[in-house]
Amino acid sequence: MTSVHAEQRKALLKRYRITSPKGFSLADHPPSDTGGIAIDEDEGKLLLQEGVERLSKLQEALFANGRWALLAVFQAKDAGGKDGTIKHVMSGINPQGVSVTSFKQPGPVELSHDFLWRVHQAVPMRGHIGIFNRSHYEEVLVTRVHSEALDHENLPDEVRAHKFWKHRYRDIRNFEAYLGRQGTIVLKFFLHISKEEQRKRFLARLDDPDKHWKFSASDLAERGYWDQYQTAYEDAIAATATPDAPWMVVPGDNKWYARLIVVEAMIQALEKLPLPVPTLDAEDKAKLQKARKQLEAET
Amino acid sequence: MTSVHAEQRKALLKRYRITSPKGFSLADHPPSDTGGIAIDEDEGKLLLQEGVERLSKLQEALFANGRWALLAVFQAKDAGGKDGTIKHVMSGINPQGVSVTSFKQPGPVELSHDFLWRVHQAVPMRGHIGIFNRSHYEEVLVTRVHSEALDHENLPDEVRAHKFWKHRYRDIRNFEAYLGRQGTIVLKFFLHISKEEQRKRFLARLDDPDKHWKFSASDLAERGYWDQYQTAYEDAIAATATPDAPWMVVPGDNKWYARLIVVEAMIQALEKLPLPVPTLDAEDKAKLQKARKQLEAET
Repeated sequence: MTSVHAEQRKALLKRYRITSPKGFSLADHPPSDTGGIAIDEDEGKLLLQEGVERLSKLQEALFANGRWALLAVFQAKDAGGKDGTIKHVMSGINPQGVSVTSFKQPGPVELSHDFLWRVHQAVPMRGHIGIFNRSHYEEVLVTRVHSEALDHENLPDEVRAHKFWKHRYRDIRNFEAYLGRQGTIVLKFFLHISKEEQRKRFLARLDDPDKHWKFSASDLAERGYWDQYQTAYEDAIAATATPDAPWMVVPGDNKWYARLIVVEAMIQALEKLPLPVPTLDAEDKAKLQKARKQLEAET
Repeated sequence: MTSVHAEQRKALLKRYRITSPKGFSLADHPPSDTGGIAIDEDEGKLLLQEGVERLSKLQEALFANGRWALLAVFQAKDAGGKDGTIKHVMSGINPQGVSVTSFKQPGPVELSHDFLWRVHQAVPMRGHIGIFNRSHYEEVLVTRVHSEALDHENLPDEVRAHKFWKHRYRDIRNFEAYLGRQGTIVLKFFLHISKEEQRKRFLARLDDPDKHWKFSASDLAERGYWDQYQTAYEDAIAATATPDAPWMVVPGDNKWYARLIVVEAMIQALEKLPLPVPTLDAEDKAKLQKARKQLEAET
């Protein structure tokens, strides 16, 4: 954000960054917040472009270094802006170093395994950025709001009987802490929109025939569970926010602002990493010299 | 074990079952122990056959129930008897409900991921028995004895710098506890042989041209690290033995006895599970009735 200094950016991110359950309430996070930045959409786009370029350079360094990985998890209510954010933030990045996984409803094979099974398979390789469009969090969000979904998970009754959600939260925390200890930086984004903003976006989809495919009647049904989802998000965020795998509660009503915050958070996470390009020892350097000579001698 | 009563079997298993680091020492586990049972090899084979039949019935119930899973991890030094035990214990079981995964040296894709990545992929589906021939424990055994192997794991220096093995143990504990909370019973077998028994088995392989493929010069090199492996096993077992994911330190010098203990431990683990066959409600029963009528009317 050119017009927004580095210190200011840090302060902005800090207010959205949740690292513990302490004092966390979604009510303290107005979806319409723009951090006091008053710019128009075009300016917002320029700033985003600049951020994407910085992220792109960092991604190259991450790839060349080949030791760390970044996993960015995106969660939101319907029309919360996940697809658009992923598209606009990641489009400038070399796709060779990025994997996007969209988690749909689990199928029979997935339901025959533990809920982290398909998620673990999809974590990014070293040197890569992994994007999760929805994630294991659906298992404590939609599955909690519609707990009849658990009937399809083939869990033993004994597993379901005892501290079930608490265990899920703990297992998610442990899993993410483990990834962190393996060198995978975990960042979780909740794109937080207001009920009114969702109404507007649904109407916009209904108005635009090109966007009809994005709307399904079940979206409206899910809207009826708004308050239950709020509670589920609040509980899940509180229970799984840690310094090593923080949640970013991103104000989502203004798309340009949400995207800026996302790109900036990813930049800051990567900037913290030591990303030296692997250096060669004397022996390897000698090999390069030999290769040069061989190539030059070919003519 | 026909000639060995149920109570006696329980007592036998109990002495090999490690569920906490407290007071555990490999020195207390003589590899030549046969639990005071004095029988010849043929009798041993008959007892095993009987055990396999009982296990086979339990596996059918596990499969029909479709909710729990059993993961049996096998670790041993070279010539410790993993392959033979898996062959003789599992051959009588319907392979449709069993998956055996042999973990070889990790390749480039595997080394680009966290060490539990390939292991998690291979865990058994609900209703199945999963056998690991070697496992994630290699990462705290061979990798610990030859810690230069870590150089190939592409870990950030920061990850390697701090409490590295402690973290690995903890992450293994958390992973196995998680599997347990998902309905996967985890049983870990260390087939424990003496150095003298290994010498004999190596010589037998060298004497028998049909077994030459099982011997490689590196086996002998590894034998040179016997004491380091003992320490690595002792530490790993102590650090990861829990009531929910116990280690069985199986006396391995007598193959027939090791196999009996393994089959018995798997039987006991499955016997503890409630494995009702899924029942049908009135609606489903009516459907069966309808199906019967339709089939009968065809002629």
